[in-house]
Amino acid sequence: MVDAGFDRVHVTYRFPLTAGEDPKARAREMAREQTVEVPEGCFPPEFEGAVVAEVAGVERVGEGVVEVRLTYSREVAGGGVPQLLNLLLGNVSMFERVRVVDIGWPDWVGEIAAGPAFGVDGVRRLTGVFGRPLLATAVKPLGHTVEELARRCREFVLGGLDIVKDDHSLADQEWAPFAERVARCQEAVAKAGGEAGSEALYVPHLSGPFEELPWRVERLRALGCRAVMVHPAILGWDVVRWLAAESGLAVFTHPTFSGPLWAVPDTGIAPEILLGDLLRLLGSDVVVYPNAAGRFPITLQEVNAIAARLRRPWEGIRPALPMLGGGIDLERVGEWASRFGPDTVLLVGSSLYAQGDLRAASSRLRQAIETRSIGRHSS
Amino acid sequence: MVDAGFDRVHVTYRFPLTAGEDPKARAREMAREQTVEVPEGCFPPEFEGAVVAEVAGVERVGEGVVEVRLTYSREVAGGGVPQLLNLLLGNVSMFERVRVVDIGWPDWVGEIAAGPAFGVDGVRRLTGVFGRPLLATAVKPLGHTVEELARRCREFVLGGLDIVKDDHSLADQEWAPFAERVARCQEAVAKAGGEAGSEALYVPHLSGPFEELPWRVERLRALGCRAVMVHPAILGWDVVRWLAAESGLAVFTHPTFSGPLWAVPDTGIAPEILLGDLLRLLGSDVVVYPNAAGRFPITLQEVNAIAARLRRPWEGIRPALPMLGGGIDLERVGEWASRFGPDTVLLVGSSLYAQGDLRAASSRLRQAIETRSIGRHSS
Repeated sequence: MVDAGFDRVHVTYRFPLTAGEDPKARAREMAREQTVEVPEGCFPPEFEGAVVAEVAGVERVGEGVVEVRLTYSREVAGGGVPQLLNLLLGNVSMFERVRVVDIGWPDWVGEIAAGPAFGVDGVRRLTGVFGRPLLATAVKPLGHTVEELARRCREFVLGGLDIVKDDHSLADQEWAPFAERVARCQEAVAKAGGEAGSEALYVPHLSGPFEELPWRVERLRALGCRAVMVHPAILGWDVVRWLAAESGLAVFTHPTFSGPLWAVPDTGIAPEILLGDLLRLLGSDVVVYPNAAGRFPITLQEVNAIAARLRRPWEGIRPALPMLGGGIDLERVGEWASRFGPDTVLLVGSSLYAQGDLRAASSRLRQAIETRSIGRHSS
Repeated sequence: MVDAGFDRVHVTYRFPLTAGEDPKARAREMAREQTVEVPEGCFPPEFEGAVVAEVAGVERVGEGVVEVRLTYSREVAGGGVPQLLNLLLGNVSMFERVRVVDIGWPDWVGEIAAGPAFGVDGVRRLTGVFGRPLLATAVKPLGHTVEELARRCREFVLGGLDIVKDDHSLADQEWAPFAERVARCQEAVAKAGGEAGSEALYVPHLSGPFEELPWRVERLRALGCRAVMVHPAILGWDVVRWLAAESGLAVFTHPTFSGPLWAVPDTGIAPEILLGDLLRLLGSDVVVYPNAAGRFPITLQEVNAIAARLRRPWEGIRPALPMLGGGIDLERVGEWASRFGPDTVLLVGSSLYAQGDLRAASSRLRQAIETRSIGRHSS
């Protein structure tokens, strides 16, 4: 739900009832658990609605399964992104099998987080790619030297890829320490882009100790980087908002460590809400997540639902790009491009590496997508 | 597992096999997924072991259920706490039903995080409480003014409680903004402690925007606070290590938002590993989590397993205190004290509030634990 003119945050929780349980009593218990966390009678009547979540709906949606809609006031959400997440899935996260399945956003949520600083259009301008899906890969594997990683970056860009991101396993290991790696890879991508006549984008992975993140971002900016990738489930969710608001870099988010929060049925937050609505609201320009044909048990329906949430109209919040990885290779790149449409980043990894010659493999991939795009436009 | 003289991080993953699946092939796939993330043949042979995780064991532990032990080299863990967590549960977090069930720590893990700065002994010295469980409560509910919250702090301390923590829903709402709340509550607890002849500890909840955390910690120190509480699943896991290393404050961690990571069977990280080993390693002096008799579906076995991990001998890493909340009241406080032993913080909330007179209720609770302690010591 979106743009419904809500003045409160509407959150729908789905859960199974235990035998004989009264769903209304449970809804009321959850409303207190998520806000005042004291029993009935231990707060003044005027806290109802203003502080205690309001039970706006209780509906049976299947055999013994209930959806409860709680609404939260603007005042209880005070405290930024951390308190917003605490409201959505605070202590109720420890009730087995409670899942946030929908959120209705009020207009004022933009005060908490303002969405992507670049968005779909901004990333297209950064990369100079219009009218077709963007092609991306990950530079890897961990274990190679900075020289070898930079060489690979160059090959990918000369072959025609639009985006080269660090693999998320590249942190600050001795084989390729952070500062040296990002300097050399940024240089390689910029230089190769100049030679190839492209605006290819290097996306360094930002990780490391909490207190070092600000200077690492400064380092990226000083090097001329235009983007950054983080893993919010480890680094902290508000890091995404901070980067979007203050770094001037396009923000890519990676889903490592986050699986239990969205990939397990009946638990956590539905994938399209967490990876769609929430990461977009926080400011992720490009949300990396698994494609349905890859190694992870995500369904095509879920993949599409996330992409739809990233792109749909949302007053005041720019649309974001899904970056889909897994099962995308030369044979099937056209099929996936048709399926997901132009406002998509297709992440091709293993199938490029398996071909050995990275430049030639990238070039074939680029050609496949160009041919397909031209074919589609002229048909 | 601990103190086994490992030179690598040993991680045991448990998961169900699908029909006909070869557990060794799956183990090998996971070993690559968590490190190089490229297929066989796409990395040089010398990466084996040095970079690619090593499969140290594959064992059937039940009908169709397997435990795989992967070991990671010191070098791949380079990059601090975020990379350590990424190694433990990176992309495999998105495989449905994979759970980390054990970790064997190498001696050098202390280079990544050094454990609690205070630990059990340090928190006892801070509070002046020895030989019995510590008694704690949460000041709440959200919605009250700073004056009322400070008044409640005073009542709890005059009644004899050892620790008053902010409820984790207190962030920076207009009813009780952060800076004003922590100043007044700290003052109230310190003053009441002076009157009561105790060293009662106020534990402010630190939340808020990423870039504001450092100055908020400075503010706490300037106010004379001696402790702080954070929710690492939202703020970021490395915040715990940073606070332990740099704040000079005793660090309390709260489990809000973290449920899907540990409370759902077959998923994420076993509770005793995440809330026990990991939070302790990161530097949590006091780990808040649900008691088995409360509102959350945690078992007594799990509660005990977490507490055992927090307190067990671990070379170079101080023991931490479990803070158990849920189902603890005047009637049963003695029972829980016996069950969990003296190195425990008993968190009593609802049952105090339900009695109305907070000072009298706190006093009865304190008396119950003293009587029990004396009784136990003389028997």
